[in-house]
Amino acid sequence: MIVRAEFERLELTLSEPFAIARGSRETTTNVVVRLTDADGATGVGAAAPSTRYGETPATVEAVLPRFLDAVESVGNPDARQRLERRLGETVRGNPAARAAVSIALCDLAATRLGVPLYRLWGLDPDAAPPTSYTIGLAAPERMGEKAAAAVDAGHDVLKVKVGTDDDEARVAAVRAAAPDAQLRVDANEAWTPKEAVARCGALADHGVEFVEQPVSADDPDGLRYVTERVPLPVIADESCRDAGDVADLAGRVDGVNLKLTKCGGIRETRRAIHAARAAGLEVMLGCMVETNAAIAAACHLAPLVDYADLDGSLLLADDPYEGVGVDGGDLRLDALDRPGTGARRRE
Amino acid sequence: MIVRAEFERLELTLSEPFAIARGSRETTTNVVVRLTDADGATGVGAAAPSTRYGETPATVEAVLPRFLDAVESVGNPDARQRLERRLGETVRGNPAARAAVSIALCDLAATRLGVPLYRLWGLDPDAAPPTSYTIGLAAPERMGEKAAAAVDAGHDVLKVKVGTDDDEARVAAVRAAAPDAQLRVDANEAWTPKEAVARCGALADHGVEFVEQPVSADDPDGLRYVTERVPLPVIADESCRDAGDVADLAGRVDGVNLKLTKCGGIRETRRAIHAARAAGLEVMLGCMVETNAAIAAACHLAPLVDYADLDGSLLLADDPYEGVGVDGGDLRLDALDRPGTGARRRE
Repeated sequence: MIVRAEFERLELTLSEPFAIARGSRETTTNVVVRLTDADGATGVGAAAPSTRYGETPATVEAVLPRFLDAVESVGNPDARQRLERRLGETVRGNPAARAAVSIALCDLAATRLGVPLYRLWGLDPDAAPPTSYTIGLAAPERMGEKAAAAVDAGHDVLKVKVGTDDDEARVAAVRAAAPDAQLRVDANEAWTPKEAVARCGALADHGVEFVEQPVSADDPDGLRYVTERVPLPVIADESCRDAGDVADLAGRVDGVNLKLTKCGGIRETRRAIHAARAAGLEVMLGCMVETNAAIAAACHLAPLVDYADLDGSLLLADDPYEGVGVDGGDLRLDALDRPGTGARRRE
Repeated sequence: MIVRAEFERLELTLSEPFAIARGSRETTTNVVVRLTDADGATGVGAAAPSTRYGETPATVEAVLPRFLDAVESVGNPDARQRLERRLGETVRGNPAARAAVSIALCDLAATRLGVPLYRLWGLDPDAAPPTSYTIGLAAPERMGEKAAAAVDAGHDVLKVKVGTDDDEARVAAVRAAAPDAQLRVDANEAWTPKEAVARCGALADHGVEFVEQPVSADDPDGLRYVTERVPLPVIADESCRDAGDVADLAGRVDGVNLKLTKCGGIRETRRAIHAARAAGLEVMLGCMVETNAAIAAACHLAPLVDYADLDGSLLLADDPYEGVGVDGGDLRLDALDRPGTGARRRE
């Protein structure tokens, strides 16, 4: 039985300012959920609310008491299907807050059974794709320096933020600094469809692997227009919140970027992964700039997907939570020596 | 580590001849797979091959040595994702044989952790819908007698086989014998689209809840024709083998009947369930006339679906395997006092 359910705000500083097409930030706020059972076992999860998807730290803190009451009323951490349904009945929406509870429940259930989550699910630790490392927007030279540092740190897969007046110079600088890396670009909705078509041709010449969210999420026909005309695969991020969006995106894009914090938890994310594959879409598993207390759970799902973008904690100056080890870009699930998600507070 | 992987043929006698539109049978043959680990823990699964889907007991026995070699070469029952991929690489197709291995692996993994499968998956035992009980084809009076006996045994949900020259008389006889039961009908591809439309109107007057596979699986446009014209929801069975068929069926039918033995195992069936829901389809979980060594695993998935049709063992004279208890039509997952699927050889 779950005897204690609590949460706390986590103020996080980024190792350097992080900019995407929508804006720049130097700090971020997560909310950590901790569940404790009668034997003293604990489960930890975290919410990384995003205003883009309608949540703030304050809304998370406002809704969590209702969610945690529901968890305490059910009590059994094995009853995750019932609990997640109960959360939806209690208050709809609020996916980041629901994800935090869902992660903590899975962490507790696997911890009680003494196995890492990926083993509970029977997933192949070697099947997890390497995570990309994100190069935020900056002047071209600075992006080249960041790419060189990432390559020095062992990263072979870089995700380059674009959506400026001179994206080609930026990608060229990154490519010069990382001649052997796999490069992906993410425009975060910045382009018009016609801009996207014009720019992607040039980016393809730099060996870019795919482009993420070239146009506004409000323009599904624009997405299709771009997908039909550019030489790169197109991945939807802001256009794809959860499994409910997948059917509409089939035929409009080549893949989707799914996140626990958008889908509202682990069960919903698995549903969306399977729905996307059944619709013939490739699947990326992504994250926010966020603590390992949230990301660690996503790492255990990574064996189900084609691409991982789970570098959020790597962009923090000082994440108080340790998670699944990352060696270069490789997620080291097989090296995990503790049950559950593997997230734990650093001493 | 899995140290022994073996299989044996199981000749089963039905409690009475069972007829559907395609034919009648008095016996059936399953193949039971048993895996044993170094600690002596065992996992059991079973294949119920169907010529309709391209398998016979002989083909199952012919392919199982290759599958079981693959299982022994991986060895770790937690590595189910890798194992199931390996099975697909070893020999494609053969879904009943693959399902038997997949069930045995899940049974072993959950047994090693000491929990029933539904708890491993976090599913809500109370969310499992009651299973229907199938009334095979016979003369109308005999079908009425069978329905009365089923109601006496506590069954509230009956699935009535149709696809004859006088379906209405049969359904009327069942309805007279079971005035309060939920009735569903299954034509097993027997009707032409126009026949289906003509007959479903009359069946709806007897309070039938939905119709399964009214027309040939080779006629997807006929399915849509029927769905658009009949007052009953239409569920596809023979038209839906696995997740790959789901997208094509969306818009043509109202739901799908998924079976472990068609999908090729537990992971594939979960994928298909999630894909079907994402496509807006209702989901039934079905089975063959088969042993509890196979059906028990499906019972643990039942909390994910809308309708259960897991009565295969109830139609046997003498199933050597005990499974999840059935009380009337209720699947008693919550009463299960043993780990894994709960299937075990009767003493």
